[in-house]
Amino acid sequence: MQVSFSSADIVGITQPLATRGSTSKVVRGLASLTTAGPGDLSFLGNPKYKSEVPTTRASVVLLPVGYSGEPSPGQLFLLVENPSVALARVCARIERLLWPVPSAGVHPSAVVALGATIAPSATIGPLCVVEAGAQIGERVHLQAQVFVGREACIGDDSWLMPGVVLASECVLGRRVRVQPGAVIGSDGFGYEFSQGRHEKVPQVGYVAVGDDVEIGANSTIDRARFSRTEVGEGTKIDNLVQIAHNVVIGKHCLICAQVGISGSTHLADYVVLGGQAGVAGHLAIGKGAKVGGGAAVTADVPAGFFVNGSPAIPLQLERRLVVLQRRLPDLFKRVDAIEARIE
Amino acid sequence: MQVSFSSADIVGITQPLATRGSTSKVVRGLASLTTAGPGDLSFLGNPKYKSEVPTTRASVVLLPVGYSGEPSPGQLFLLVENPSVALARVCARIERLLWPVPSAGVHPSAVVALGATIAPSATIGPLCVVEAGAQIGERVHLQAQVFVGREACIGDDSWLMPGVVLASECVLGRRVRVQPGAVIGSDGFGYEFSQGRHEKVPQVGYVAVGDDVEIGANSTIDRARFSRTEVGEGTKIDNLVQIAHNVVIGKHCLICAQVGISGSTHLADYVVLGGQAGVAGHLAIGKGAKVGGGAAVTADVPAGFFVNGSPAIPLQLERRLVVLQRRLPDLFKRVDAIEARIE
Amino acid sequence: MQVSFSSADIVGITQPLATRGSTSKVVRGLASLTTAGPGDLSFLGNPKYKSEVPTTRASVVLLPVGYSGEPSPGQLFLLVENPSVALARVCARIERLLWPVPSAGVHPSAVVALGATIAPSATIGPLCVVEAGAQIGERVHLQAQVFVGREACIGDDSWLMPGVVLASECVLGRRVRVQPGAVIGSDGFGYEFSQGRHEKVPQVGYVAVGDDVEIGANSTIDRARFSRTEVGEGTKIDNLVQIAHNVVIGKHCLICAQVGISGSTHLADYVVLGGQAGVAGHLAIGKGAKVGGGAAVTADVPAGFFVNGSPAIPLQLERRLVVLQRRLPDLFKRVDAIEARIE
Repeated sequence: MQVSFSSADIVGITQPLATRGSTSKVVRGLASLTTAGPGDLSFLGNPKYKSEVPTTRASVVLLPVGYSGEPSPGQLFLLVENPSVALARVCARIERLLWPVPSAGVHPSAVVALGATIAPSATIGPLCVVEAGAQIGERVHLQAQVFVGREACIGDDSWLMPGVVLASECVLGRRVRVQPGAVIGSDGFGYEFSQGRHEKVPQVGYVAVGDDVEIGANSTIDRARFSRTEVGEGTKIDNLVQIAHNVVIGKHCLICAQVGISGSTHLADYVVLGGQAGVAGHLAIGKGAKVGGGAAVTADVPAGFFVNGSPAIPLQLERRLVVLQRRLPDLFKRVDAIEARIE
Repeated sequence: MQVSFSSADIVGITQPLATRGSTSKVVRGLASLTTAGPGDLSFLGNPKYKSEVPTTRASVVLLPVGYSGEPSPGQLFLLVENPSVALARVCARIERLLWPVPSAGVHPSAVVALGATIAPSATIGPLCVVEAGAQIGERVHLQAQVFVGREACIGDDSWLMPGVVLASECVLGRRVRVQPGAVIGSDGFGYEFSQGRHEKVPQVGYVAVGDDVEIGANSTIDRARFSRTEVGEGTKIDNLVQIAHNVVIGKHCLICAQVGISGSTHLADYVVLGGQAGVAGHLAIGKGAKVGGGAAVTADVPAGFFVNGSPAIPLQLERRLVVLQRRLPDLFKRVDAIEARIE
Repeated sequence: MQVSFSSADIVGITQPLATRGSTSKVVRGLASLTTAGPGDLSFLGNPKYKSEVPTTRASVVLLPVGYSGEPSPGQLFLLVENPSVALARVCARIERLLWPVPSAGVHPSAVVALGATIAPSATIGPLCVVEAGAQIGERVHLQAQVFVGREACIGDDSWLMPGVVLASECVLGRRVRVQPGAVIGSDGFGYEFSQGRHEKVPQVGYVAVGDDVEIGANSTIDRARFSRTEVGEGTKIDNLVQIAHNVVIGKHCLICAQVGISGSTHLADYVVLGGQAGVAGHLAIGKGAKVGGGAAVTADVPAGFFVNGSPAIPLQLERRLVVLQRRLPDLFKRVDAIEARIE
């Protein structure tokens, strides 16, 4: 990453409420408080690291407005509402430099079926396959080696990274970003047991993904048995997540890495599932509910609840049980002592 | 999904034992009882949803023979042995419409080595790679961007979806279906620690997959250190499953999503592993054993046992312990009270 | 696998300290003690299987020097320091036979951008994509359908298997082996919540992987928010592992299958994480620490500690708690009895 921003550039991007000090250094990189050197931009995103500010060698530091310290000579403090948001704006600027907009058109090595509809401003990168009946919106970017199946549909400004598979009939909204290797529209895992064998239940539904969704690397979303598996607008899905057939996920949820959601479960809006959590099938997870990392949800979760553990229970109860479990050795001794005394 | 079935078509496909009512609507879609409208087919697959039947607007409803209610005007009830199986038959018909049989032959963009043997009726789709010595059976479908390594072998009527990797020397039986992104034949994870470093133990075995197996999206099956990793006939593997080197899986097992099976473990026939379960290495899981979702199996499981929890124990004991753990706060109070009393 | 070694070949490869018996059979395969037949090489790698040695039909058996039994007629025992290491040497020889060194050059179906630098001895296999500015070292092997993004860099003698994605700016050391489908350099999972939506924090860092690292099939390593995500020299990563943004992994670690490591966590050297373990974000795991399979690490782990359970605690305590939990039914009965008695 080679960047070059003047102090004025950074001020322009981050719009600080106040500044302290100044620097003549050109910002050439971003770094954490402890690893930054001259020419780096750093930030205090988490109060836990506050003690690292006085000794950081960063030339420019993004700080919360309430921060009271003074910069070193040749150091510029920018006081902002939210340093993480300010940093995100700088990163967005860098990203636009790093990831140049690809030129529109179909790479000669791509295999596009007759009868696929591709917007003139879309980019179909090298070695992509687009099957018949697929519809690719304006400014869509299929980066490389992407597969788009029959009758699949991709909304404007979406970006599918290398190796993504969007199977037939599946639909992506606008501004959807799919990380490498993700699979959308694999068959649901459905069988009927008959005469000693598992007979496949054909999965003839599809997957519908809303606007502004992000899907992580090598995650998998199964098509519905019939009807559709849904991912609501603005929901963000991390890597290696499994979403089974007929799951319905609301808007603006966060699904962390390696989560598994079993068939036909419904998540309302703003649900957060911590990494490696598992949710059993046919459940309802209420609006704004949170599930701790690694938790195993085996029953409905009411709106706003935070559950944890295996099987998952309300967080405060779970924490109390964890504490009491660690006191079990002592409890056994106490009961031994009582028994000895009352014999 | 655009379908069109008359009532008579549906009766022909599902072979009901009895019918009630009638409809003039053409069936154009499938939907759950609550979301169905006129022109939809629905079904009662789980008694839990029985109360939704009287108000469903579906034009045709598949119901178990014992169901006693009457259809609404213009509604047709089909009474069948097993509504789920009947629905599966309808889905199979739809699937055949949706997934037209590809025409035989090698797409000009595919890269097929000299010395690969490809049956005349097989379809090698766009941008596939087939290495030397590979053997591809009759009516095999390599959909797109599939990799088949040296000396690998694929039985008749198997279907490898986009992005599948079948590494060298690995063998698939007949009618095997591999979902997108699955990897068969990656190296086993084996090292010897020597002079402060992990030295790789080369993995020179292969993977043998039986007839009628299904392998889920982005799942991984490692080749054996030597000899072979096996997946028995009729076993179904869900998405993001990890099967380590030298594992032997019996026939007709169900391996749910995100399960991990460590090296050299053997599963007998008809084993069921719930989602996210983990099985340690060098274990034996007996015929028909069941492992609950998220369970961690650290010891052999006898045939027919159902185990759960971490570490996994028999289900009834595990359930009892879960109940007692939730009563720990009360138990601590009771012991406090006893101590206070006998002081 | 078709191999052919004389006894003298095997002795030459394994350098035994002593031999017992002899065989005229040519070694044509490797097999476990119980499944081996004439013409097979077998070994005693785990004392657990010692009782299987007297009845094995293998023609050649690798045994630890202390083994006292005598071979059957026509059977050769090779007594070595470490049978597993000796076997690994045989496997390495077989691997060299099985995996012929590919010839150097760029396959005509690969898409290599102008401005990519490819060493003359490198092999760019069929249907690979190499973007502008990428640097590919000597004897690197991109097997097939591999993606190498802008400005990415691959050290000498590395091998990227089919379907691997190395995203832009990411760097691999020398002799790195990446199993099929792995993704290196997907975006980190970072968002700021603002006005009811999760706004993406662009991820403008990269991934740096040291020499002699191995990365498993379909594993994912996210690029840093800024700066870099690191994997130290000699570390081995199994399949379906998730490594989040800004994680730093030391040298010679072992990360087993389906592990997830959350953002900004640091692992020192020689850490071992068991399969399906999860590590929360912003933690420090000390040198040589071990985490049991499926454990959930929610706090720093000091060097040399072995932790287990959810949440993870020192192994001995965890084992004691597991034992006491199973005695809970009895404890409840004892407290019932005490209460009855003192009423």
